[in-house]
Amino acid sequence: MSGTYKIIELVGTSPKSFAEAVRAAVNEAAKTVRNMGWFEVVDQRGRIEEGNVTEFQVTVKVGFKLER
Amino acid sequence: MSGTYKIIELVGTSPKSFAEAVRAAVNEAAKTVRNMGWFEVVDQRGRIEEGNVTEFQVTVKVGFKLER
Amino acid sequence: MSGTYKIIELVGTSPKSFAEAVRAAVNEAAKTVRNMGWFEVVDQRGRIEEGNVTEFQVTVKVGFKLER
Amino acid sequence: MSGTYKIIELVGTSPKSFAEAVRAAVNEAAKTVRNMGWFEVVDQRGRIEEGNVTEFQVTVKVGFKLER
Amino acid sequence: MSGTYKIIELVGTSPKSFAEAVRAAVNEAAKTVRNMGWFEVVDQRGRIEEGNVTEFQVTVKVGFKLER
Amino acid sequence: MSGTYKIIELVGTSPKSFAEAVRAAVNEAAKTVRNMGWFEVVDQRGRIEEGNVTEFQVTVKVGFKLER
Amino acid sequence: MSGTYKIIELVGTSPKSFAEAVRAAVNEAAKTVRNMGWFEVVDQRGRIEEGNVTEFQVTVKVGFKLER
Amino acid sequence: MSGTYKIIELVGTSPKSFAEAVRAAVNEAAKTVRNMGWFEVVDQRGRIEEGNVTEFQVTVKVGFKLER
Amino acid sequence: MSGTYKIIELVGTSPKSFAEAVRAAVNEAAKTVRNMGWFEVVDQRGRIEEGNVTEFQVTVKVGFKLER
Amino acid sequence: MSGTYKIIELVGTSPKSFAEAVRAAVNEAAKTVRNMGWFEVVDQRGRIEEGNVTEFQVTVKVGFKLER
Amino acid sequence: MSGTYKIIELVGTSPKSFAEAVRAAVNEAAKTVRNMGWFEVVDQRGRIEEGNVTEFQVTVKVGFKLER
Amino acid sequence: MSGTYKIIELVGTSPKSFAEAVRAAVNEAAKTVRNMGWFEVVDQRGRIEEGNVTEFQVTVKVGFKLER
Repeated sequence: MSGTYKIIELVGTSPKSFAEAVRAAVNEAAKTVRNMGWFEVVDQRGRIEEGNVTEFQVTVKVGFKLER
Repeated sequence: MSGTYKIIELVGTSPKSFAEAVRAAVNEAAKTVRNMGWFEVVDQRGRIEEGNVTEFQVTVKVGFKLER
Repeated sequence: MSGTYKIIELVGTSPKSFAEAVRAAVNEAAKTVRNMGWFEVVDQRGRIEEGNVTEFQVTVKVGFKLER
Repeated sequence: MSGTYKIIELVGTSPKSFAEAVRAAVNEAAKTVRNMGWFEVVDQRGRIEEGNVTEFQVTVKVGFKLER
Repeated sequence: MSGTYKIIELVGTSPKSFAEAVRAAVNEAAKTVRNMGWFEVVDQRGRIEEGNVTEFQVTVKVGFKLER
Repeated sequence: MSGTYKIIELVGTSPKSFAEAVRAAVNEAAKTVRNMGWFEVVDQRGRIEEGNVTEFQVTVKVGFKLER
Repeated sequence: MSGTYKIIELVGTSPKSFAEAVRAAVNEAAKTVRNMGWFEVVDQRGRIEEGNVTEFQVTVKVGFKLER
Repeated sequence: MSGTYKIIELVGTSPKSFAEAVRAAVNEAAKTVRNMGWFEVVDQRGRIEEGNVTEFQVTVKVGFKLER
Repeated sequence: MSGTYKIIELVGTSPKSFAEAVRAAVNEAAKTVRNMGWFEVVDQRGRIEEGNVTEFQVTVKVGFKLER
Repeated sequence: MSGTYKIIELVGTSPKSFAEAVRAAVNEAAKTVRNMGWFEVVDQRGRIEEGNVTEFQVTVKVGFKLER
Repeated sequence: MSGTYKIIELVGTSPKSFAEAVRAAVNEAAKTVRNMGWFEVVDQRGRIEEGNVTEFQVTVKVGFKLER
Repeated sequence: MSGTYKIIELVGTSPKSFAEAVRAAVNEAAKTVRNMGWFEVVDQRGRIEEGNVTEFQVTVKVGFKLER
C-alpha cells in the first residue's frame, strides 16, 4: 500500500445490524470520498426505545489513498 | 439528556448473531428496568462446540434515566 | 474449566457479516485444532472497494484445552 | 477501607462544568444509596446545539460500603 | 451459557493476599445475590501504613444469571 | 440519530478551565461546521510557565450529521 | 523541545474543581522542581462524604527539562 | 536477550491462588515447549459456584527463544 | 499554544524505517495543510513479502492551528 | 486526602507470590520514602527457568504525601 | 484478503534500531512459516548496559494465510 | 532480576529517528542514575516545522535496581 493515506471517522446507523450500520456509513461517504480501501470498527452503540433496540450505531475509521 | 442516568452491565446470548445477542439482553432487562435509552458494546465473545460457533455472547452497558 | 488451555489468534473473513467471519475462522481452525471451547473478538475491520464494503474481517482469540 | 464495597456507574449532567455534572450525579444517587465514599471519572462527553456546548455529561463510577 | 446475565462490580479487601480479597468480595455478595457464575479482576490496589502493606484491595466484575 | 455522522478531532485552549477549553474548540469549529451534535473528551493537557498552569488544553472528538 | 525531559506523577486535590486540583499539584511541585513545561491528566477521582462531593483529586504527569 | 523469541498465550487454573494458576500453565507448557524465559499476566478471572470461588484462572503470555 | 487546533489522521509508508514513514506522511500532507505543529504515532504496521519486510506503515495524528 | 501527593513506580520480586512481590517493593521503598499511603498494581510478570516459575515480578505505583 | 489467517507473536532484537529488530523477527520466522503477509508492532523495549542502549526489542504480531 | 527496581519516565529527542531519541534520553539519565537495566517505549511524538518533521520525541520508562 505504498503512498500516503488519510483516515476519517464516521458513525453509521441501521435498525437491523452492526454490519448494515457499517455499510450505511461507507456508502454515504462514497458520495464525496474516493479511493476508500479499508475500515476499522472503533465503537458499537445503539438506541433503546420502550425496551427494544431500535438502532445500531457503529463508529468506523475509514482509510483512503491521497491522490497526487 | 439533562437529569441523572444509571448504567448497568449485561451479557446477552444468541445462537445467530451479535445483534441478536444485544436484543436478547435488552429485552430481558426491559422486564424490570424502565426508561432505558442507549447501549454500548464492551465485549464480544462466544462458545465453540465440536468446531462450530454455537453461541454469540455480547456484554453491553445499558443506560437509563433515574426517575425522581 | 480446570486444566490448562492455549489461546490462538485468527482472522476470519466474510462478505456478509461479522458473525459469519467468526464462523469462517472457527470452522477453518477446526480442521487441525481439537477441543476449542470459546472465542473472544479482538478486532473488527474490513475491505472497501468502489465505495462498498466487500469483506468483513474479524480477529478472534480462540481457546482450547491442552490434551495430556 | 476493610470490608466489601460495591461500585455503580452513573452519568451526571450540567450546563456549566464537568465538576458540576459530577456533583449532580452524586447528589441524585444520595437519595437512595448510603455510605458512598469515592468516585472515579470514566467518560466526559457533552451536547452541542447550534454551535454551543449546552450540556456537560460525566460518567462516574461511585463506590460505597456494603452494610451487613 | 444461554440466557441473560448481569454483571456487578465489587471491591473486596484482605490483609493477606489478592486471592483472599476476591474471596471476601464474592462471599459477601453471596448473601444477597444468587446464581453467581464467574468473576474478572479489573483493578488491584492496596493500603500502606508505616511502610508496610496492610490491605490488599481487588476490584472484580461478577456475573450472575438473571432468573425469569 | 438515524443518518450518517462524521467525527472530527479538535484541541481547544483556555487559561481558566477544561470546560472553557471545550467551549473554545466548539465555538471556533462552529464557524465552518454545521449540525454539530455532541463531543467526547479524549485528552486533557496543559502548559506550565514559571510554576503556574497558564493554559488548559482539551482534545475533543466532535460529531456532526452529514447533510445530503 | 530539544534536550531531555523527566516526567513525574502527582495527585492534586481541591474542594472546588478539577482545574483547581491541577493548579494545586503544580504549585506545590514548583517549590522543589524547576523548568516544568507541561502536564497531562491521567486520572480524575474524588471523595464523597454524606452524599456530597467534598474533594476533587486529579492525577497528572508533569514534564520538566533536565538541566545540564 | 539477543536472538528471536516467540510468545504464546496460555490459561492456567488453580483452586488456590493466582500464583498457583500461573505455575500450572507454565508446568503444563514445559512438557512440549523448551527455553521458556518469562511470562506476563494478561487476564485474571475465575469460577464461582454456590457463592464461593472454586477456581482461579490466569491468562499469561509466555516467551521462549527460537532455536536455530 | 493558545488558539484552536485540528487533528487529522494519516498513514505514511516507507521501505526503510518507521521514521521515514512518518516523514512521508507529513511531507505529503504539507501540500494541502498549513500550520502543522506536531504529530503523535498511533499505530505501527507493515507488509511482508516472501519472508521480508517490504514496507513500514505508520499511522500518525497530526495537529495544526486553525486560521481565522 | 487533601494536600499534594507524589506517585513513584517500583518493581518488586518474590519467588513465592504476587502479594509477596508487592510487599518486597514497598518495604524496600520504606527505607527512603516516608508517608506512603497506597499502591496500585500496573503489571505482573515473572521469570521461568527450566520450565518452572522462579520469580514473580510486580510493577506497582506507590503514592505518598509531599511534606511541606 | 478472503480466506482465514493466523496471527503469531514474536520478539525481534537488534543493536541498531526498531526497524532492524522487526526485520530480524520476520526473517527468523520465515524459516518455518510461509505466506506471512503483515505485521503490527505491539511493544517496543530494550536493554541498557553501563548507561547505553545495547539492544532494541520489538514485539510484533505477524499474520499469515492458512493453507488448505 | 531479584531485588527491587525503580522506574522513571523520560522524554528523549532527536532530529533523526526514534532510536536516536531513546539513546539521547538514556545517555542523559546515565549522568545521574546508575544501574539502569531496561527501557520501554510509552509514547512517540514529534515536532513539525514548515511541513517537515524536525524532531522525534520518545517517552520511555527506564528501570534500574535500587542499591542497598
